[in-house]
Amino acid sequence: MNEYPTSIGTTDATSIRLLGHDLAADLMGQVTFGELAFWLVALRRPGCGELRVFETVLVALADHGFTPSAIAARLTLTGAPESVQGALAAGLLGGGSRFLGVTEDCGKFLAEALASSEGPLPLPDDEEGWDELADMAIRAHRESGRLVPGLGHPVHKSGDPRTPVLFKIAEDEGVLGPHLRLFAAVGRVHPMILGRTLPLNGAGVCGAALADLGFEPDMLRGFALLARAAGLLGHLAEEMRRPAGPGIYEQTDRDVVYQPRA
Amino acid sequence: MNEYPTSIGTTDATSIRLLGHDLAADLMGQVTFGELAFWLVALRRPGCGELRVFETVLVALADHGFTPSAIAARLTLTGAPESVQGALAAGLLGGGSRFLGVTEDCGKFLAEALASSEGPLPLPDDEEGWDELADMAIRAHRESGRLVPGLGHPVHKSGDPRTPVLFKIAEDEGVLGPHLRLFAAVGRVHPMILGRTLPLNGAGVCGAALADLGFEPDMLRGFALLARAAGLLGHLAEEMRRPAGPGIYEQTDRDVVYQPRA
Amino acid sequence: MNEYPTSIGTTDATSIRLLGHDLAADLMGQVTFGELAFWLVALRRPGCGELRVFETVLVALADHGFTPSAIAARLTLTGAPESVQGALAAGLLGGGSRFLGVTEDCGKFLAEALASSEGPLPLPDDEEGWDELADMAIRAHRESGRLVPGLGHPVHKSGDPRTPVLFKIAEDEGVLGPHLRLFAAVGRVHPMILGRTLPLNGAGVCGAALADLGFEPDMLRGFALLARAAGLLGHLAEEMRRPAGPGIYEQTDRDVVYQPRA
Amino acid sequence: MNEYPTSIGTTDATSIRLLGHDLAADLMGQVTFGELAFWLVALRRPGCGELRVFETVLVALADHGFTPSAIAARLTLTGAPESVQGALAAGLLGGGSRFLGVTEDCGKFLAEALASSEGPLPLPDDEEGWDELADMAIRAHRESGRLVPGLGHPVHKSGDPRTPVLFKIAEDEGVLGPHLRLFAAVGRVHPMILGRTLPLNGAGVCGAALADLGFEPDMLRGFALLARAAGLLGHLAEEMRRPAGPGIYEQTDRDVVYQPRA
Repeated sequence: MNEYPTSIGTTDATSIRLLGHDLAADLMGQVTFGELAFWLVALRRPGCGELRVFETVLVALADHGFTPSAIAARLTLTGAPESVQGALAAGLLGGGSRFLGVTEDCGKFLAEALASSEGPLPLPDDEEGWDELADMAIRAHRESGRLVPGLGHPVHKSGDPRTPVLFKIAEDEGVLGPHLRLFAAVGRVHPMILGRTLPLNGAGVCGAALADLGFEPDMLRGFALLARAAGLLGHLAEEMRRPAGPGIYEQTDRDVVYQPRA
Repeated sequence: MNEYPTSIGTTDATSIRLLGHDLAADLMGQVTFGELAFWLVALRRPGCGELRVFETVLVALADHGFTPSAIAARLTLTGAPESVQGALAAGLLGGGSRFLGVTEDCGKFLAEALASSEGPLPLPDDEEGWDELADMAIRAHRESGRLVPGLGHPVHKSGDPRTPVLFKIAEDEGVLGPHLRLFAAVGRVHPMILGRTLPLNGAGVCGAALADLGFEPDMLRGFALLARAAGLLGHLAEEMRRPAGPGIYEQTDRDVVYQPRA
Repeated sequence: MNEYPTSIGTTDATSIRLLGHDLAADLMGQVTFGELAFWLVALRRPGCGELRVFETVLVALADHGFTPSAIAARLTLTGAPESVQGALAAGLLGGGSRFLGVTEDCGKFLAEALASSEGPLPLPDDEEGWDELADMAIRAHRESGRLVPGLGHPVHKSGDPRTPVLFKIAEDEGVLGPHLRLFAAVGRVHPMILGRTLPLNGAGVCGAALADLGFEPDMLRGFALLARAAGLLGHLAEEMRRPAGPGIYEQTDRDVVYQPRA
Repeated sequence: MNEYPTSIGTTDATSIRLLGHDLAADLMGQVTFGELAFWLVALRRPGCGELRVFETVLVALADHGFTPSAIAARLTLTGAPESVQGALAAGLLGGGSRFLGVTEDCGKFLAEALASSEGPLPLPDDEEGWDELADMAIRAHRESGRLVPGLGHPVHKSGDPRTPVLFKIAEDEGVLGPHLRLFAAVGRVHPMILGRTLPLNGAGVCGAALADLGFEPDMLRGFALLARAAGLLGHLAEEMRRPAGPGIYEQTDRDVVYQPRA
């Protein structure tokens, strides 16, 4: 017989226990949904400052307008209006390496750079030290032929407005940790290495903040998806009131041109 | 040329606007993720009491242990560990009529009963009046051959612990509206009609509360899915740390018996 | 301990058995993929004529150009190029009641009409009898407030080219059964009831043909999805070679207009 | 205005054209579903021998019993019985790197080895030459820290019964190309390098055969998914007749043990 140990929850005839607490008596009305989401993944309750940063990250990532993912969700509702879960799932499936991946990639990049500097050496204790570490990390990353994640934005070319706000909230709440510090240093030193100045983007700073909250890089995409789920619900509710899907279909179909294969 | 009007958001080079506000200046750090989710769908900011009830609903619906949906998400991660979005989507796809449907069905049932009583007649102003309305609604529903949604629970046979807590919070916050009142009346009168006493279940009371917050029945399943997304992330994080999927697969495979078709 | 009886297959160290046969020795190279798909669902091997009709149905339903479902699949690949399974799944999720539903709805409508005529009365044996049955079925369906499925097409207003071909092949192969006969009668008698002449569409005739092959109405959507999976692979392969997703995103985004909620 | 060139198809009021042909006149009843699937992706019609190999591959990959993917599809139907498309999509989402990935990985491994040998040097013309190439490819692959794909099977430890059959059909049909030849050589030489003899597995030989048919490695997973879609339909049809999902849920739930996090 198999056994599947779980730390999430158990249910019996008279109670529902979640994370070691009585759901009805201790959690309902006492914690926000954001707090519960943090707790379910981290298996520890966030501190007050941690929670504020975490909720801010979810708010920052919730919506980006008519993204490919939002359009896919709307078009799926056009074909299967009876299945909100299908439309939501279709939207989330576009949250892969290219769009939501930045949050995860940036968290991973920073975590790896920190891991390589730990051990014999302590983490830097001044800006200069962080800049040095950032310099090494950027060069190593580029030598392996990869782009530095979290740098650049197709629209916010001279600065992503979310970035300074999240840094400030993390600082105010006393949870600005090594990933955010290193990310700030990446912002300072990259122009000398890359030869041009790129903004630290919002997806990247969110990845750094989540990593500072102690989450494994593999779960960062998960939180980006949770945030996006709320944005997609907004799009689906709007689609039910005022459908855009049929127009997008019609416009696209009109722009298709048959071309035999060369 | 088509035009797709949206009330959700817009972006330009220097700002991201969401719901008519500046995301970075006015929303990040100022609203919880739950508040933003409410706002994105309702297109209005919730009042303080409304928000507490809404967050409580999301907390109540977030997890139910190893449900078919959580197991499907874990098994999907077993086969495609590189795609958290695929595993999350697979879990949400099980949120259909049978499991998450109760929230939606209950909201619909109550909304229809209220709609039929409005118009010539005002809503009841005392318990007796609500009981009468509940009596009519239950009988009409059963005559059309359907089960009354929100009644009964496979495990919590003598009472779902979430139900009284949500009623109390809605009352404390001053947002106990007609759907919840009618649902309470369903709890009082159904034994006389059905011949046995069933608990008002948690999924049902959540549907009633969401309907009282002004959401269309079609969006109730959407919020149940959002809540479940957090629970699924908890399961996926646990699955990454301590996989249950391979054991579930192995156990199931062991219990399969070939049987030629009769 | 549970037991899950299956008629599909079993595997041991030296053989793989599928549908009671040795996969390697008896099926590989001996049956087409279409034949296996039929067999897996029906749990019986199709006759030669049945197989030709079945493959024709799958061919007829495989692609319809840049449908909402194909566009959603392409946009999902834009966001998550590493996950072909996610893009394919997103495309299939749009195969719900509105698009692929016609095949299923038409099969159901015909099956119900036939079921109601069976029992005391034999099925008709001449065209006049079928017309009478069709007349009754159309009237009953419309009285319950529903549209007759399988009638009308947004593009092929004066005739869907697939319909006569499928009728002819079914006739040639000797498998033109009661569902197709009744569907033909629907085509003859509906103008007198509806006051205008609509084409019998391809999705509808495919539903009738699948029902004649003995499939339950609940599985008809499944075959439409299988057929569509091939079309979606074509779109995804083309998207990899020559991406349309980014252009569709850009065009749609350009047409979005912010409109505060009234 | 954007333009999306496509080689797949176009539709007007009186005809449906697919791949440059009239769907109703030239394809329906003339090609099998497998042939159309090949054509849609390759944009060329397969030769007769190619088609037989291709259909054999789809048959070989269609089902593997109660895999995680099939179980996830069944459990999704348990929760959302109204959405066959959701259950099918959930099943396909498990077709990622770990399960269906072998087909793709093996095709890629062989294609890369062949690419590196082309250019100055011609492909081998005798068994000894292929063995040499296989030897180099295996060593290079292992030096980069990766397992050789297509080798080994958890159940068929002394030989996967599908492998020799597919080799034989490809040879009989005159389409045994360089990928299959190199894969055969991998089978001959790996024991000397790895120190033990592993079977060439079915997923791997299918990847080699598809690569020999001219498909890009990125599409191999797509065909494995198409094949699997038929198997999943078989499971879903069986699940509708005789549900296993509730039992799997119940059994799993019974085996869950709460364990506070260490």
